[in-house]
Amino acid sequence: MANDQDIEKYFEFAKNLTLEAGQTIKNVDDTDKIIKSKSIGKDLVTNFDHQIEEFLINALSKEFPDHKFIAEEATGLSELPELTDSPTWLIDPIDGTVNFIHNFSQYCISVGLTICKEVVLGIIYNPVSCELYTAKKGQGAFLNEKPIRVSKITELKKSLLAFEVGSLRVQKNRDIAWARFFALFDSCQTIRNVGSATLSMAYVAKGVIDCFQMDGLQPWDVAAGMIIVTEAGGTLIDSKGGPYNLMKPNIIVASTAQLACEVTKLIVDTDLKTQRKRLQRT
Amino acid sequence: MANDQDIEKYFEFAKNLTLEAGQTIKNVDDTDKIIKSKSIGKDLVTNFDHQIEEFLINALSKEFPDHKFIAEEATGLSELPELTDSPTWLIDPIDGTVNFIHNFSQYCISVGLTICKEVVLGIIYNPVSCELYTAKKGQGAFLNEKPIRVSKITELKKSLLAFEVGSLRVQKNRDIAWARFFALFDSCQTIRNVGSATLSMAYVAKGVIDCFQMDGLQPWDVAAGMIIVTEAGGTLIDSKGGPYNLMKPNIIVASTAQLACEVTKLIVDTDLKTQRKRLQRT
Repeated sequence: MANDQDIEKYFEFAKNLTLEAGQTIKNVDDTDKIIKSKSIGKDLVTNFDHQIEEFLINALSKEFPDHKFIAEEATGLSELPELTDSPTWLIDPIDGTVNFIHNFSQYCISVGLTICKEVVLGIIYNPVSCELYTAKKGQGAFLNEKPIRVSKITELKKSLLAFEVGSLRVQKNRDIAWARFFALFDSCQTIRNVGSATLSMAYVAKGVIDCFQMDGLQPWDVAAGMIIVTEAGGTLIDSKGGPYNLMKPNIIVASTAQLACEVTKLIVDTDLKTQRKRLQRT
Repeated sequence: MANDQDIEKYFEFAKNLTLEAGQTIKNVDDTDKIIKSKSIGKDLVTNFDHQIEEFLINALSKEFPDHKFIAEEATGLSELPELTDSPTWLIDPIDGTVNFIHNFSQYCISVGLTICKEVVLGIIYNPVSCELYTAKKGQGAFLNEKPIRVSKITELKKSLLAFEVGSLRVQKNRDIAWARFFALFDSCQTIRNVGSATLSMAYVAKGVIDCFQMDGLQPWDVAAGMIIVTEAGGTLIDSKGGPYNLMKPNIIVASTAQLACEVTKLIVDTDLKTQRKRLQRT
């Protein structure tokens, strides 16, 4: 197991690297962006996603040759690599690629590190707003080096939620997501969609969003956000109420345990109703 | 009719006032916010909405005693005052009040001036991001004094849209808005909801959102945005395709005429389907 000094070393190196990478995707001319579709539908990728990921992996693997990587573009649509006890960097080079394509400011780089399968540090950087969210295990969460805390909101009706339906390709998953959206929309103060799961988690940590819910995420989307939210005092659970799974993240991220509990209950009830409707149709 | 020198004088005075007012709603402590419900439902107002509006109206009416005002909190739920040929300031003290309540950065002050019923200047200020959007008739649009232009996107399938369902209280209007949302969601790249109609218009002007559609707005929501968008080269029409009405804004704001046209067609078709469904149910 790495000691605090090791983690500090990994953190400082990765933080400076992330800040440097951020400069590459700040104020990019539209004509320099090569946009491709990853698969069917609306899942887009640019040359900058690849470029940032390669830059980070090359520099980190040169500095820490025994470390492993699980990164969005390298993994692509193939099966996820197994998470081992070795230090493993989980990297999303650009979370919020569609926002990046349109120069809409809500995108970021996300870098997390696991040791013995546990996230020990997280770095999220939005190069447009120059917001750098960071956390190291047991040492609190920070925005541009100032401590941050989640909000104190405990009731769904007073909450501002972040929710993404995303580009769900499977009709069954779309039905579930929309049914949850409407149930939450009617119960909370209102919903925003940021277009970046990672930034939505950062906003919960900062206390400006009270809850974020999304299924079907990937480990690189959430690794950094998970430690930043929990170090900021937030609650992170699986959408069905159990402990969350870093390698298959269906998550509720909330400012308080009471709020997480209320959202879980609503989601479980709503999913049951959606399932019943589907069975009636077939 | 006022000449350019007059408009310049009004603009400079109102701009400095708006920047000053913005300082009042930057980093406000939650305990200082008194939150009230305006009517039924989720339409909230704070003591700061009233404070900013009074500050702006007092200072403007002292400087320009013959000018008139149409402002959100002064009007409240009563009937809109008539728009006359007199210089008239249209003021939304905080557009995006729910975001302001939660310290979510997407809120702004909106100040527009009409002379002979035409908007001659617009000022939108987000005190968190320090973004100041401005325009004077015939002189282009600016973000922090740098010229801005709408995007060049002409096709809905390549567009990033802003859309707000809002806290629509009438079921009929909700049905229309959601049907439009789904039709647009399936046809565009994706949709964001910012939680501020005024900022959504500013983002179209800046070129980071390609289209914004919303019905049931108020003149103070859109006056500043209208001139900023059109001076940035954007297209602004009524949701049904005709000329827009400042005093009853149901609007499509788009980067290009082609995009506005495609969105109009989709909305008109979708509304017809929604109406047919409603008639079948009754």
